[in-house]
Amino acid sequence: MNPTAAILVIGDEILSGRTRDSNMHFLAQELARVGIDLQEARVVPDRHPIIVAAVRALSEAHDHVFTSGGIGPTHDDITADAVAEAMGVPLGVREDARSILQAHYDRMGVEINEARLRMARVPEGATLIDNPVSAAPGFSIRNVHVMAGVPRIFEAMAAGLLPRLTGGTPLLSQSYRILKGEGEIAGPLAILQADFPDLLMGSYPFQQNGAFGANIVIRGPDGGRLHEAMTRLAALFPE
Amino acid sequence: MNPTAAILVIGDEILSGRTRDSNMHFLAQELARVGIDLQEARVVPDRHPIIVAAVRALSEAHDHVFTSGGIGPTHDDITADAVAEAMGVPLGVREDARSILQAHYDRMGVEINEARLRMARVPEGATLIDNPVSAAPGFSIRNVHVMAGVPRIFEAMAAGLLPRLTGGTPLLSQSYRILKGEGEIAGPLAILQADFPDLLMGSYPFQQNGAFGANIVIRGPDGGRLHEAMTRLAALFPE
Repeated sequence: MNPTAAILVIGDEILSGRTRDSNMHFLAQELARVGIDLQEARVVPDRHPIIVAAVRALSEAHDHVFTSGGIGPTHDDITADAVAEAMGVPLGVREDARSILQAHYDRMGVEINEARLRMARVPEGATLIDNPVSAAPGFSIRNVHVMAGVPRIFEAMAAGLLPRLTGGTPLLSQSYRILKGEGEIAGPLAILQADFPDLLMGSYPFQQNGAFGANIVIRGPDGGRLHEAMTRLAALFPE
Repeated sequence: MNPTAAILVIGDEILSGRTRDSNMHFLAQELARVGIDLQEARVVPDRHPIIVAAVRALSEAHDHVFTSGGIGPTHDDITADAVAEAMGVPLGVREDARSILQAHYDRMGVEINEARLRMARVPEGATLIDNPVSAAPGFSIRNVHVMAGVPRIFEAMAAGLLPRLTGGTPLLSQSYRILKGEGEIAGPLAILQADFPDLLMGSYPFQQNGAFGANIVIRGPDGGRLHEAMTRLAALFPE
């Protein structure tokens, strides 16, 4: 069994439709690559009790929880507080995090004020996640990994974090394009799925130049079995 | 208080990273327009008990739940079954839904087989949602609105459905671009937010050509108050 994961995207701007989230899709692809099964994604607003409840529920249900957003210096950045409460540990400015910020702002010739110092607050017992873009670190506390919302920073943090986590067997995937309506495909495909209970078969319909079709995606950990099923599928629906 | 809503996106293909969901962002924008507050979004896999639990939890917590995906003819389309179970009502082929499909397939000169007939199955007591793209209807059962995953169909269904729902006061929104790091903005912005507890102020940082900046977004139902706060903000950070 591969480790399981959830992503929690935090931010009013996603739910109001102002911003289109991209971190969920990015992380889904990266996790598939390292063999961690993303089993749930949630988007919640910038509200303390809602974030606390979501972090608790997801960290109990999954091996890993990745959060995105709410770790900047402004008043609406409340993720660190909420995660600390959810994990039942205190939150405070930590020296190593403060030094990282201090060095960064020294280089920029900018004063590290009270707002910026908020970004050095870390729950007790957390490990820092490197931020090569804008210095302010993310952190992992137990199985919860707290990262920035800005996509370029989220992606850079994930690149540093994911190799540290123990993955499982990457799920292999093959797809086959059939130019028939799903209604023609459904019957034979259901029989094929029943013959290969160890594989996951999905049908993703499309319509193109007025013609109906579907991409059939077969996924599983064993390349040989995948090949066997794809051969059967191709024989059922020759090109 | 505006009505609240959640969206439940159903599909392994989103969580595996194969497909990037667009229905969540589309619906977020549409709901903001009609004054329904989207308060949560979830993505779950094609697994019956997980869909049932999510539909139950979200339909109890919100005025409306919109689902996306899993209502086609193939074996992995299990949303109708799961929603019927979550609502505690039986599911069966309904005559009006069957006639819509029959007419559609007659026009196309295609036989309506067992797989296609699955798309006429509707929970008892549901209202159909029109599908002007490919006929197979969605449905509303109590506060749960079940729609297709294919974006063009989801969008067409939403266009028919949303005017039937009672909205609230649309949230107005104005934004102001400040070419300073968030660390400079955070202090004054927190004071402004405290002075306008009826408005929501968010800060969304960006980095452009090496310069740091943030878009400050202020939202609220009252245009006069919004204008007042924007005037104060512009005075604090002149262009």
